[in-house]
Amino acid sequence: MSAAAAVPAEFLSLARNLVDISRPILRGYYRTRLDIISKGDESPVTKADRECEAALRAAINKAFPAHGIIGEEFGSERADAEFVWVLDPLDGTRAFVTGRPTFGTLIALTQGGKPVLGVIDMPILSDLWIGATGHATTLNGAPVKARPCAELKDAYFSAALPQMFQGADRARHEKIAGSAKSATYGGDCYQYGMVATGFIDLVVEKTLGIYDYLSLVPVLEGAGAIITDWAGKPLDTKSGDAVVAAGDKRILDQALAILNG
Amino acid sequence: MSAAAAVPAEFLSLARNLVDISRPILRGYYRTRLDIISKGDESPVTKADRECEAALRAAINKAFPAHGIIGEEFGSERADAEFVWVLDPLDGTRAFVTGRPTFGTLIALTQGGKPVLGVIDMPILSDLWIGATGHATTLNGAPVKARPCAELKDAYFSAALPQMFQGADRARHEKIAGSAKSATYGGDCYQYGMVATGFIDLVVEKTLGIYDYLSLVPVLEGAGAIITDWAGKPLDTKSGDAVVAAGDKRILDQALAILNG
Repeated sequence: MSAAAAVPAEFLSLARNLVDISRPILRGYYRTRLDIISKGDESPVTKADRECEAALRAAINKAFPAHGIIGEEFGSERADAEFVWVLDPLDGTRAFVTGRPTFGTLIALTQGGKPVLGVIDMPILSDLWIGATGHATTLNGAPVKARPCAELKDAYFSAALPQMFQGADRARHEKIAGSAKSATYGGDCYQYGMVATGFIDLVVEKTLGIYDYLSLVPVLEGAGAIITDWAGKPLDTKSGDAVVAAGDKRILDQALAILNG
Repeated sequence: MSAAAAVPAEFLSLARNLVDISRPILRGYYRTRLDIISKGDESPVTKADRECEAALRAAINKAFPAHGIIGEEFGSERADAEFVWVLDPLDGTRAFVTGRPTFGTLIALTQGGKPVLGVIDMPILSDLWIGATGHATTLNGAPVKARPCAELKDAYFSAALPQMFQGADRARHEKIAGSAKSATYGGDCYQYGMVATGFIDLVVEKTLGIYDYLSLVPVLEGAGAIITDWAGKPLDTKSGDAVVAAGDKRILDQALAILNG
């Protein structure tokens, strides 16, 4: 990371502006109760997601019309541009639907397919992590750091959902969860923010998409943490759905040994 | 419940005062980072727990010196009184330790061993549920209601931790989680608040103590929800560690059939 150019201030400034746009929209749909939850266009999840993504796209297009945008709801525009923004307005739909405040907004900026800026924003909790190449990761403006942890037996492990591990991965998950000091579930992107802030030591997950993981990379790396796929390779727009994040390389290596054992 | 006398206003007033005492204490310890988490007396969990319980006891003793108190940290005083307050200042220590805001404070008032008043307070989220015999359950002062749900396949299921199910209970948990529309984990007492508020349909848990479940009963019953042990019996100070809560009796019955099948 040290060799790469620092992300310019105007990109960071846009990232903060995007959060000012997404927060009030998501807050407006939080705890919108439906006695029958529908999967159709009228569900609060879909409405919040689409309204938020449309607003974020408009702001990006206005600020940097040459940049590309990839979003879950409205697809890609200029996806072959040097700089591409990757948007997930609502990460953690299960949390959102069950009235939990632990859903977030994820925004990544890639340069040549590699994530160089990442935003994890928790609209209800008012917690905003921003990480970018050449900058220290901040939580609400204050620098944060991952914590050291030498042994898996002392590590706090977390994953969004045990059911994300199927087939042979079930045994891998059970071995990691059983070897760690503690296992917790839920939190989606918030878990990664807490690795960057030194409260969680290890997150191992499957079934993630580029919307879920690209934004996490600059946040974690700028806090001294590490995030890779299950083969230990850096994450980019071509990575698979398997992610491991650790505050300390020793824990990452111990988790990778179990995942590949 | 309709036959029982309504809980007097001065007990509800004390309950609200207790939350005013516990919130600032717990907020002060939130996200207190330790690079090595200790289980000893110096851990933030233990300090928060003890400081909070001591302050709550002092307030109860001052307001109602004849009432009994049972707390996790400092034991029992006058446990054979007609009215006994049961205190769990910090429910969700795993959440607290991993920097998550989903821990809560649980306060129950029992009369003759039966819970008649319950408080679920989320100090970081500023969400306060109060339920009491003869009163509608409120969230931050506004009445809440559980939602109807006829079939387990349409139900949102939740539990604090999959690892709370061991031995034969693992298969029971997997059957319920797999039959429901969605399974989520984490949240501890917050999950029950969300049953009372109509966002979660079913919570099934093991390994609970009287500190964990007594306060939930008035909150759920005052919102039209149901909470029992795994045999379908009402919860009191003598119940075991197995709890099921549902917003709709039809879901409760379907869950009990799996638990006892």
